[in-house]
Amino acid sequence: MVNRTRFDDSDCPVARSVDAIGDWWSLLIVRDAFDGSRRFGEFQRSLGVAKNILTARLRSLVAGGVLETVPASDGSAYREYVLTPKGESLFPVIVALRQWGERNFFAPGEPHSELVDRQRGSRLRALEVRSEDGRLLSPDDTIVHKVAAGADPSGA
Amino acid sequence: MVNRTRFDDSDCPVARSVDAIGDWWSLLIVRDAFDGSRRFGEFQRSLGVAKNILTARLRSLVAGGVLETVPASDGSAYREYVLTPKGESLFPVIVALRQWGERNFFAPGEPHSELVDRQRGSRLRALEVRSEDGRLLSPDDTIVHKVAAGADPSGA
Repeated sequence: MVNRTRFDDSDCPVARSVDAIGDWWSLLIVRDAFDGSRRFGEFQRSLGVAKNILTARLRSLVAGGVLETVPASDGSAYREYVLTPKGESLFPVIVALRQWGERNFFAPGEPHSELVDRQRGSRLRALEVRSEDGRLLSPDDTIVHKVAAGADPSGA
Repeated sequence: MVNRTRFDDSDCPVARSVDAIGDWWSLLIVRDAFDGSRRFGEFQRSLGVAKNILTARLRSLVAGGVLETVPASDGSAYREYVLTPKGESLFPVIVALRQWGERNFFAPGEPHSELVDRQRGSRLRALEVRSEDGRLLSPDDTIVHKVAAGADPSGA
């Protein structure tokens, strides 16, 4: 995208996350990394994206600390892309998008990919937004407030 | 975006969700709707986005069934934008992005917005990916498989 608006100085964590991920291609690259893609060619085949776009997005995800490159697992000269711990912590974002898509964009009986529990082969529980003491929260049960400079963001 | 690649025929629910949301602006509009914005001017002030872009994104979110327009709550001639049930079900997506942002992009003591439990004023529990029988799952505990045509996507 030309002249992309940046959100990296926003005080909103949603906006900074959006800025750090970059664009939808980047998010789908992250999805593929969770699904086991490691090599440029694997991402390229899965996404059908132009090589120059994929190159730029991979570079940006590495620069942002979401992916890192490692030597190929088979000892060849290839580099492979793997999720960093920061990238791995995007798992709930991908799962949330997946569950919203499953619920809203597939007709009954339509073929689709599904994320399942490897041990049991069964579908995952729907993500739940809960309070610190465990109550299930709807959007109306929550409110955004500003945390001023100097407050500890860990809430500790 | 010109010539945006479309993902709406993908068999992956993540890709269809991404396609339906449209772009990051649209996601930040949804965030603002959760935070109480209802009028064009409110979204515009919050996002600092060009009016023509905002107009197009709002229209697209209404066409996609994420937002709907309702008469103004104060009886004036304005139209207001509110989340549909489909839009409300994006709540875990926004919360997941927010929590990732809180953990990764703010220095200790840096001002930020925070989503809290309205009743207690305390921070939310981190989203957890769990199996049907309640086990906490890491990405490695899950696998993507294809559900063929004719299978019931509800899992019933």
